[in-house]
Amino acid sequence: MNEQHTPFPRQNSPVTVIGLGPMGQAMTRTLLAAGHPVTVWNRTAGRADGVVADGATRAATPAEAVEASDPVILSLTHYQAMYDILGSVSGSLAGRTLVNLSSDTPDRTRAAATWAADHDATFLTGGVMAPAPMIGTEAAYIYYSGPDEALERHRAALTLLGTPKYLGEDPGLAQLMYQAALAVFLSTLSGLMHATAMLGRAGMKAQEALPELLTLSDSIGAMMRAGEATPGAALDAGEHPGDLSTVTMMGATSDHIVDTSRSLGLDLALPEAVQAHYRRAIDDGHGGDNWTRIIDGIRAPR
Amino acid sequence: MNEQHTPFPRQNSPVTVIGLGPMGQAMTRTLLAAGHPVTVWNRTAGRADGVVADGATRAATPAEAVEASDPVILSLTHYQAMYDILGSVSGSLAGRTLVNLSSDTPDRTRAAATWAADHDATFLTGGVMAPAPMIGTEAAYIYYSGPDEALERHRAALTLLGTPKYLGEDPGLAQLMYQAALAVFLSTLSGLMHATAMLGRAGMKAQEALPELLTLSDSIGAMMRAGEATPGAALDAGEHPGDLSTVTMMGATSDHIVDTSRSLGLDLALPEAVQAHYRRAIDDGHGGDNWTRIIDGIRAPR
Ligand SMILES: NC(=O)c1ccc[n+]([C@@H]2O[C@H](COP(=O)([O-])OP(=O)(O)OC[C@H]3O[C@@H](n4cnc5c(N)ncnc54)[C@H](OP(=O)(O)O)[C@@H]3O)[C@@H](O)[C@H]2O)c1
Ligand SMILES: NC(=O)c1ccc[n+]([C@@H]2O[C@H](COP(=O)([O-])OP(=O)(O)OC[C@H]3O[C@@H](n4cnc5c(N)ncnc54)[C@H](OP(=O)(O)O)[C@@H]3O)[C@@H](O)[C@H]2O)c1
Repeated sequence: MNEQHTPFPRQNSPVTVIGLGPMGQAMTRTLLAAGHPVTVWNRTAGRADGVVADGATRAATPAEAVEASDPVILSLTHYQAMYDILGSVSGSLAGRTLVNLSSDTPDRTRAAATWAADHDATFLTGGVMAPAPMIGTEAAYIYYSGPDEALERHRAALTLLGTPKYLGEDPGLAQLMYQAALAVFLSTLSGLMHATAMLGRAGMKAQEALPELLTLSDSIGAMMRAGEATPGAALDAGEHPGDLSTVTMMGATSDHIVDTSRSLGLDLALPEAVQAHYRRAIDDGHGGDNWTRIIDGIRAPR
Repeated sequence: MNEQHTPFPRQNSPVTVIGLGPMGQAMTRTLLAAGHPVTVWNRTAGRADGVVADGATRAATPAEAVEASDPVILSLTHYQAMYDILGSVSGSLAGRTLVNLSSDTPDRTRAAATWAADHDATFLTGGVMAPAPMIGTEAAYIYYSGPDEALERHRAALTLLGTPKYLGEDPGLAQLMYQAALAVFLSTLSGLMHATAMLGRAGMKAQEALPELLTLSDSIGAMMRAGEATPGAALDAGEHPGDLSTVTMMGATSDHIVDTSRSLGLDLALPEAVQAHYRRAIDDGHGGDNWTRIIDGIRAPR
């Protein structure tokens, strides 16, 4: 990791990180470990103490943070936080590359790219596909969209955080991909907590239940690939062959999960949402089709 | 697979399979391939044609099917189907072992065990943790509960279908574990279809979207283990340390998914159910905690 001793000092270009939640802190530490000078700013100043102790430079103001380096990485709860922080210092943005790695809707990322262009800044959007502890590891990857030359210019520093996956010029693309991926992720996590609560009612501890449930979660991809060589190919062809897991069978199971959860006194929002997907497909006469038929109801809500 | 030529003919004991959906057919073929004589019965008689062509014996009536072998495996949409089929032939059940591998609530499996005992039958309940194409492969496993001597007596045949995981005497346990596991599975599948529908609005085909989304799904277990050495241990201690992925951050992302889905005109039931988990935890003052805090609201619905 001693890249400060390599003969390529340009790889150690200064980087600014604005926003020091778990993610911004992990990014700052990864950049510092690779020998990049890192300037940080956070609304709650005390939250910078840890990374400053590790070698980061604390900027006194957002303007100072923006002026210290290029690129300026933003790791904030949502895009509104960027306007709250940079709205009053937009005069400092000219010539800078803002790399916004915060979550928000594709529409709001597109509006932000226009706002940045109005202040002569370059705007790259990213969706970080790793939790904070995995930043800087092989497993981390980041979806990017916006001007590809900006990604190329800062590729060395950004690759340290996670492998870049570039999606295209439209600034909304990275967040669309991110929101879709997180829809899977958050649905699974809510399912894991619901299932852990179910098993808890029978006296099973979370530390017994979760590893067992994660074994199942680990295997979902393999199950889908066992059912279809190229998952999604039949769906694209409008085909939902009923020789695998039918809407009727999966729908009956979703009924059993709702009934079991009700008798255990648990919240029903999640299992009822899943049940609604199957009920809709059954109502539409597709009980004998493969479960993938539920996508029709998601695409065309009543 | 030529077990009929081994010196242990008892391993090739006759087995009856009632219910020939995708799962019953896969089980029948796996048993036949291992040299077990298999007698089958299905409400819709024509559905037996394929496995009969492969060597299974067709029973003319449910009574004939029950009398042909021990064990009698049931692979049906729900437990009501068992009563519909066996209710009028319960006189044939004495001395038989019914192995019900159908989905239903723990309460209904307990009631069924009592019903079987009333007819002098042994009742083993199972939850099959594999889709039909994976039956008989290394990856398949089956949760069992009920009398363990019954599992031991039929272990050779049952292990062919998937590795048995015995949970205990209470006949409800296998289905509780199954419903919990399926709560994770169905939540993930609904999330995958929702996400595929999101990306479809940007012109991405399902056969591009799903493999990308499955890569994420594949890694959820690793992410959880990266965050905590023994997933669930902190949760059991009532601790939700906020240095990973906070309720506020995950809740904001769930808002972004709802907003994105709304602007794309998609069904909102699933993302709104997930959002409700985070809103509840934020309302209860837990925004700064780790996301696992959502379990409190699931355990104690308002
Ligand atoms: N953590 C993860 O595992 C993870 C994984 C993938 C992607 N992400 C994404 O990365 C981004 C950051 O995540 P995180 O976990 O570090 O988030 P976080 O804990 O929510 O922290 C976000 C940062 O945003 C700041 N902030 C929020 N609202 C603000 C406002 N109105 N004005 C100024 N600052 C504001 C916070 O400042 P204060 O300290 O002053 O509150 C904090 O520095 C999020 O968009 C998240 O979706 C996170
Ligand atoms: N398929 C999978 O991937 C999978 C994976 C794990 C667990 N399972 C579980 O395995 C069981 C069977 O699954 P499957 O996919 O084969 O299910 P399925 O397609 O729903 O078929 C179930 C069988 O139940 C019969 N049936 C339903 N209602 C009936 C009634 N009232 N009277 C008589 N027969 C009735 C059907 O008969 P007809 O042919 O006459 O309709 C059919 O033989 C389910 O409980 C399911 O949850 C399945």
